[in-house]
Amino acid sequence: MIKVGVVGYGTIGKRVADAVLLQNDMELVGITANSYNYRIKTAQQKGIKIFPMTAGYEHIEHGISVAGSVDNLIERCDVVVDCTPKGAACKNKEMYKKHQVKAIFQGGESHEVGKSFVAQCNYEEVAGADFIRVVSCNTTGLCRTLHAVDWKYGIKGVHATMVRRAADPWDIRHGPINAIVPNLILPSHHGPDVRTVLPDIEVFTISLSVPTTVMHMHSLTIDLKKQADTEGVIKLFKDTTRVRMVKNAEGIRSTAEIMEYAKDIGNSRGDMPEICVWEETIGTWGNKLFYLQAVHQESNVVPENVDAVRAAIGVCSGEESIRKTNESMSLH
Amino acid sequence: MIKVGVVGYGTIGKRVADAVLLQNDMELVGITANSYNYRIKTAQQKGIKIFPMTAGYEHIEHGISVAGSVDNLIERCDVVVDCTPKGAACKNKEMYKKHQVKAIFQGGESHEVGKSFVAQCNYEEVAGADFIRVVSCNTTGLCRTLHAVDWKYGIKGVHATMVRRAADPWDIRHGPINAIVPNLILPSHHGPDVRTVLPDIEVFTISLSVPTTVMHMHSLTIDLKKQADTEGVIKLFKDTTRVRMVKNAEGIRSTAEIMEYAKDIGNSRGDMPEICVWEETIGTWGNKLFYLQAVHQESNVVPENVDAVRAAIGVCSGEESIRKTNESMSLH
Amino acid sequence: MIKVGVVGYGTIGKRVADAVLLQNDMELVGITANSYNYRIKTAQQKGIKIFPMTAGYEHIEHGISVAGSVDNLIERCDVVVDCTPKGAACKNKEMYKKHQVKAIFQGGESHEVGKSFVAQCNYEEVAGADFIRVVSCNTTGLCRTLHAVDWKYGIKGVHATMVRRAADPWDIRHGPINAIVPNLILPSHHGPDVRTVLPDIEVFTISLSVPTTVMHMHSLTIDLKKQADTEGVIKLFKDTTRVRMVKNAEGIRSTAEIMEYAKDIGNSRGDMPEICVWEETIGTWGNKLFYLQAVHQESNVVPENVDAVRAAIGVCSGEESIRKTNESMSLH
Amino acid sequence: MIKVGVVGYGTIGKRVADAVLLQNDMELVGITANSYNYRIKTAQQKGIKIFPMTAGYEHIEHGISVAGSVDNLIERCDVVVDCTPKGAACKNKEMYKKHQVKAIFQGGESHEVGKSFVAQCNYEEVAGADFIRVVSCNTTGLCRTLHAVDWKYGIKGVHATMVRRAADPWDIRHGPINAIVPNLILPSHHGPDVRTVLPDIEVFTISLSVPTTVMHMHSLTIDLKKQADTEGVIKLFKDTTRVRMVKNAEGIRSTAEIMEYAKDIGNSRGDMPEICVWEETIGTWGNKLFYLQAVHQESNVVPENVDAVRAAIGVCSGEESIRKTNESMSLH
Repeated sequence: MIKVGVVGYGTIGKRVADAVLLQNDMELVGITANSYNYRIKTAQQKGIKIFPMTAGYEHIEHGISVAGSVDNLIERCDVVVDCTPKGAACKNKEMYKKHQVKAIFQGGESHEVGKSFVAQCNYEEVAGADFIRVVSCNTTGLCRTLHAVDWKYGIKGVHATMVRRAADPWDIRHGPINAIVPNLILPSHHGPDVRTVLPDIEVFTISLSVPTTVMHMHSLTIDLKKQADTEGVIKLFKDTTRVRMVKNAEGIRSTAEIMEYAKDIGNSRGDMPEICVWEETIGTWGNKLFYLQAVHQESNVVPENVDAVRAAIGVCSGEESIRKTNESMSLH
Repeated sequence: MIKVGVVGYGTIGKRVADAVLLQNDMELVGITANSYNYRIKTAQQKGIKIFPMTAGYEHIEHGISVAGSVDNLIERCDVVVDCTPKGAACKNKEMYKKHQVKAIFQGGESHEVGKSFVAQCNYEEVAGADFIRVVSCNTTGLCRTLHAVDWKYGIKGVHATMVRRAADPWDIRHGPINAIVPNLILPSHHGPDVRTVLPDIEVFTISLSVPTTVMHMHSLTIDLKKQADTEGVIKLFKDTTRVRMVKNAEGIRSTAEIMEYAKDIGNSRGDMPEICVWEETIGTWGNKLFYLQAVHQESNVVPENVDAVRAAIGVCSGEESIRKTNESMSLH
Repeated sequence: MIKVGVVGYGTIGKRVADAVLLQNDMELVGITANSYNYRIKTAQQKGIKIFPMTAGYEHIEHGISVAGSVDNLIERCDVVVDCTPKGAACKNKEMYKKHQVKAIFQGGESHEVGKSFVAQCNYEEVAGADFIRVVSCNTTGLCRTLHAVDWKYGIKGVHATMVRRAADPWDIRHGPINAIVPNLILPSHHGPDVRTVLPDIEVFTISLSVPTTVMHMHSLTIDLKKQADTEGVIKLFKDTTRVRMVKNAEGIRSTAEIMEYAKDIGNSRGDMPEICVWEETIGTWGNKLFYLQAVHQESNVVPENVDAVRAAIGVCSGEESIRKTNESMSLH
Repeated sequence: MIKVGVVGYGTIGKRVADAVLLQNDMELVGITANSYNYRIKTAQQKGIKIFPMTAGYEHIEHGISVAGSVDNLIERCDVVVDCTPKGAACKNKEMYKKHQVKAIFQGGESHEVGKSFVAQCNYEEVAGADFIRVVSCNTTGLCRTLHAVDWKYGIKGVHATMVRRAADPWDIRHGPINAIVPNLILPSHHGPDVRTVLPDIEVFTISLSVPTTVMHMHSLTIDLKKQADTEGVIKLFKDTTRVRMVKNAEGIRSTAEIMEYAKDIGNSRGDMPEICVWEETIGTWGNKLFYLQAVHQESNVVPENVDAVRAAIGVCSGEESIRKTNESMSLH
């Protein structure tokens, strides 16, 4: 049993903790907590051990059992998954080094923090690393489909316009309410970030934020080395793990219906960890390939974090880890 | 075992079907279907029997097993829960009469269709009726808290401003995108509708639609017969079934965080069937009582439909039915 | 000619500057500027003199002519209208005292900063004051209609649910995107704030924010001393300055159509400085009066600021000032 | 004086009428009206003559002076600008033929209705035509910048992802509220539509709708014949009529601030008829050119309609017409 701790119990952290609980080769040692709130209360109700960031405080007042300090948590772990907000990981990394524990970081951190990782793209290259960085939701989404396309057709270059939901569903502070907001740094960081996982693919990305909380949407234009046909691309994506074909013909017209579908099939929290490609949007024009894909920001990196734990320890092959994670989370 | 069929498999129908599957005194005979889509595909994957509205068509093409006609469904049921869109129920009622099957209708229908019903308010009065109407989400929400307040303090009159989410989360056709839209019929229909359940309470309601898909919010001003204090009202609501106290002190700041909380505690589809009253908004001023409550349109009437099935058959008391439904759905 | 300066050139400041330019008894000495942007560029194109907050900087680089320092601006004015963001006014007040110049503040400041002011409610009481505070958009909106209702029918008490647009149209940072956010401090500050203008009216207010940028909406319930009828209330509001009746019968269904109407009639920036009451929502029930009113946050206090300038100097009666301001701005 | 009538007085029609009133070589004969509403009331207040679609009715009741029938309007015109909703124009065209009056149609109609027109692209080719079709807002936006780029660098092919606002600001019926909705017909109609104006440019377009009412945003990727540099493209667009460079360096961060800027500079209705290209988003990569442009759906085709009137009559060159229209509307 791999002993896993989760540092940072927010949008990603709580999902990773739930996913770890589903693995039969992992044990969730516990989570950290900053301040008392409904997330911590719920974690306790689920029987998860809580290690507050600071001692002597409010948690006990609110009836939360405290299992020990953060140091106590880390020293009991083989691997820590650090899901703290962007920027906190550097300081934490020193703590993990001190305790000689391996750590997984998230895509908000710069790529120097650890080896960039997308399970189906570079598990074997990263295996055994002390520090692994699961790339961001958008980069993960791009890597999953581009890796498959490159393998089958060869990619000369990619242009992606990324239409981003502006905030998480629970996040009431951030807007915009009624605007389209371009990212004015050109290209957006996603292109270079893809290359930390897939170094041979040229990717140019532009991103815009729009007033929705639901999912990101990527519009991709790819110059291929070999000509593709629509049927072949559909088959490719159907055969690619963590990619799901959706179609208008089944009533899935928008990101909203993908979310409804995820709820209907019983996904935890209504999540959709797979990248969804619209069958009707796959098109070719000479050596060009086009498609639209939708990315669920809150959940698509969760299986990657689980695989990264196994990759860090080196317990099994990437293929086996992906199979285990997919089965436990009912993923395609 | 009460044999239950669900006619109309949309927002409410699919939830009622899932809830019926959780009852140990009920059997889900099947559901109807209009056209092939992801909902029907998912129902089949769950092993639910499907009875299409029209014969000989597309369902079989898409690999859906057809269990029979709608008539076949109805004749095998003790009670049908009719969750068809507003207006279709009248025609369907003739069909139920013909088959001598009891039926539950939804609040979009006029109150002549059946006896108006909110389990904790008037289960015993409605018990045994052939046709029961579960009132709308907003009316159910008003009835749950007003019934409790009236019981403890006596109500002279109520004014409610209802801020309504404009569309279901999956509904991409309806707006507004950036406006507040008053209901210009005064009073809104909710006040008279409350009186079909609680005839002795005077209620004046005004409603507005706003561009959110999440939850309705009600702002209530009540003239009481007996003066109330905040602590007493908090205790009252904590003791009231299907009412849940939420508070900023636990990080619940808005309807968005209620939805996040519902996902965290593992509610099916991230639903919140309980009416949520904000502890911090309960206030008194002379003989007046104020509070804000949030209503989850898609799910709060689901337990009422389950109880209405038992009320129609008359198998048990309201108290017992509510206890059974609450336990099966993990409700307060 | 009253010499007027505007300190703070944002949402309110730029509108006040434009309104001052329309007055034949006022001269706009100039405005202040913090950093270079499209607002400053546009002000220069309109021929407005610019007095930057800090010396020796970027404005000149961008081709902006600098007319002098902030001290230079203030010493040339009879009255300064301070439209700086909430909280900056206290420090500025010392500067105005030093220069012995009168000043108008905005409603974001606490009511100690100056005498609270709504022209049609208390112009004569405030006349001659050195420091006047134009109350907030919501408070101004409540005062305009409540003052009229109290005058004609007498008010025993008011309950208002205020549905607030969450952000200005240009403000892309603030949300929520998909939530209703209650103000959890009870009552909201608006009630006490109304009483700084209308001390004899008991007002209890609750406020909610919703994801729109367009207008606020107030739902009012008033306990009257004398019974009212709908026709009488409609006549009252038609006769009340800076209140405009709108109606569905003319195609005005929502706040969005009020904004469209404001554009059609040629209002500067598409503003609507009048409070809009929906004719179809005026209702009575015993001694109670109900109505819905819409408030355009960015512009409704602009005429109040112009009148406050005249009140500070004491050049004319409130009636005359309101007439002059209304004529220049084509207000009702 | 060219005698001009406007048939259909909605979003586009009312703006075209206002623009015609600004031309010193045109006379606005009048407009049509369907039903009484605030738009018609406002038109009458502006002194515009009203010719109702059907006789003997409600307009007179509401105090609207009726100038005659639609036939009366048409027979007094040299050119009719038909701004009726999509689909009505075909029937109207017969009416215009009967009266031997020239007509301008809008882009919602199929391209067979008249010669497709964007003034700066093909005025001379269209001049003298009896029936002219001003292409849609999105197509007009694409044509304005692509025509310039093709002239200077030569275009081999274009890929455009078009992020569309889902509804007009006054339109409260249409959503989505919280979703991204792809257009699932591939390619979207915009590409072929561009070729009705610029037949030699290969354009592939994908479009998505997002929950905003403000402006469309186009993300363009162009394969050039000659390599371009950023400075050269900026200069090109600065020299192109009806294209406006905007930049973050002046505080314009999003479509919302473009709309604020349009209000500040005093544009009628806060419109922005120019296509806005973000300076910071212009980039090159080998022979590729990228940029983002924002399109104001309600107003960018208005100057095209004015020019189309002159083109139909053949009174002057395209250059002269554009100059006249630009001066009257203060366009770049």
